[in-house]
Amino acid sequence: MADKTIPDIVVGRLPVYLRALQRMLQEGRRVTSSQELGERLGISAAQIRKDLSQFGEFGKQGTGYTIESLAQQVQSILKVDKVWDVVVVGAGDIGSALARYPGLNNRGFQVVMLFDTNLEKIGADIGGFIIQDAAGMIEKIQTAGIQIAMMAVPAGAAQEVADQLVQAGVKAILNYAPISINIPPDVRVQYIDPVTHLQRMTYYL
Amino acid sequence: MADKTIPDIVVGRLPVYLRALQRMLQEGRRVTSSQELGERLGISAAQIRKDLSQFGEFGKQGTGYTIESLAQQVQSILKVDKVWDVVVVGAGDIGSALARYPGLNNRGFQVVMLFDTNLEKIGADIGGFIIQDAAGMIEKIQTAGIQIAMMAVPAGAAQEVADQLVQAGVKAILNYAPISINIPPDVRVQYIDPVTHLQRMTYYL
Repeated sequence: MADKTIPDIVVGRLPVYLRALQRMLQEGRRVTSSQELGERLGISAAQIRKDLSQFGEFGKQGTGYTIESLAQQVQSILKVDKVWDVVVVGAGDIGSALARYPGLNNRGFQVVMLFDTNLEKIGADIGGFIIQDAAGMIEKIQTAGIQIAMMAVPAGAAQEVADQLVQAGVKAILNYAPISINIPPDVRVQYIDPVTHLQRMTYYL
Repeated sequence: MADKTIPDIVVGRLPVYLRALQRMLQEGRRVTSSQELGERLGISAAQIRKDLSQFGEFGKQGTGYTIESLAQQVQSILKVDKVWDVVVVGAGDIGSALARYPGLNNRGFQVVMLFDTNLEKIGADIGGFIIQDAAGMIEKIQTAGIQIAMMAVPAGAAQEVADQLVQAGVKAILNYAPISINIPPDVRVQYIDPVTHLQRMTYYL
């Protein structure tokens, strides 16, 4: 499955396909086509067929896809047919929103720990999580064997926190701090910075 | 400047270059090179030179880039050498965090209005913004001539809100709802969904 020759840009589209398929299931739908998926997503049907074909045979020519089965297969490819534990570092506005975000559940993730360095925040309850002291973060993450972190810390702290996460054994970091971080090649990072997205659109205005 | 032949993926890297350049300025730096930028960003120096060359001549062979001048030129290309008014729709956890987010300022954007449909929230103050009734949204956005919106509403409401934003004259939507939306070809949309980013990484775990 995890064939290293699959381009990352194709891997990046699978979660979007999965999200649309799960939405269709919620709508009570059973069968779809690459045409319909494409219209929903603004992607050509040919692109969708080509992307999926990289991972094997799905659906039959002319009869479309059974949504539930395709969704399960995409979940399996993305390894979200299980639930991953996730830590959140930074209990500011964004970190708190992430800790409380109901949209992680049923999509393969659950927040299990929330850390901050601010002594005034440590011990407080955010959506059922007690904010823990980031000083003990490395050991706690290591002991729990957690591989995924969401980082919502100030830009100036991001590299240091990332280094600690890597030391703790984290292999995937979703970075909300508006700064690029350096990590070893066996660790993945994805960035969420609303400003870069906004600036990508103002170019066209 | 807005040459339509520039690939969108190149446009998408410019905000990342700009962010790194502005960081260097904060650090008191004056001159950089494509090598140094590349190391910070995990992008090859050749890629950076090629991207920038699409927009004209920057820097001199062998002497690198004057950071402030390059940053100004990239700001100008991205049209963020002015400040854009932005509306936020949805005053839940994420919308409230966006309304309060200090990271928009100095990067070309300011939130000027915050809307919600929840009668219990309307009138409340979030970081200096009074939450306004979304029922009057179209007219208020139109009157103010606002072109950019950040949408942090439930998935089930996203298409309807997007339609209203388009009707109000919005040309760029940053969509935090975990669902793809359909918009006219002259409107841009960018998506922020932490789960799609996380799933793109679990594939490799």
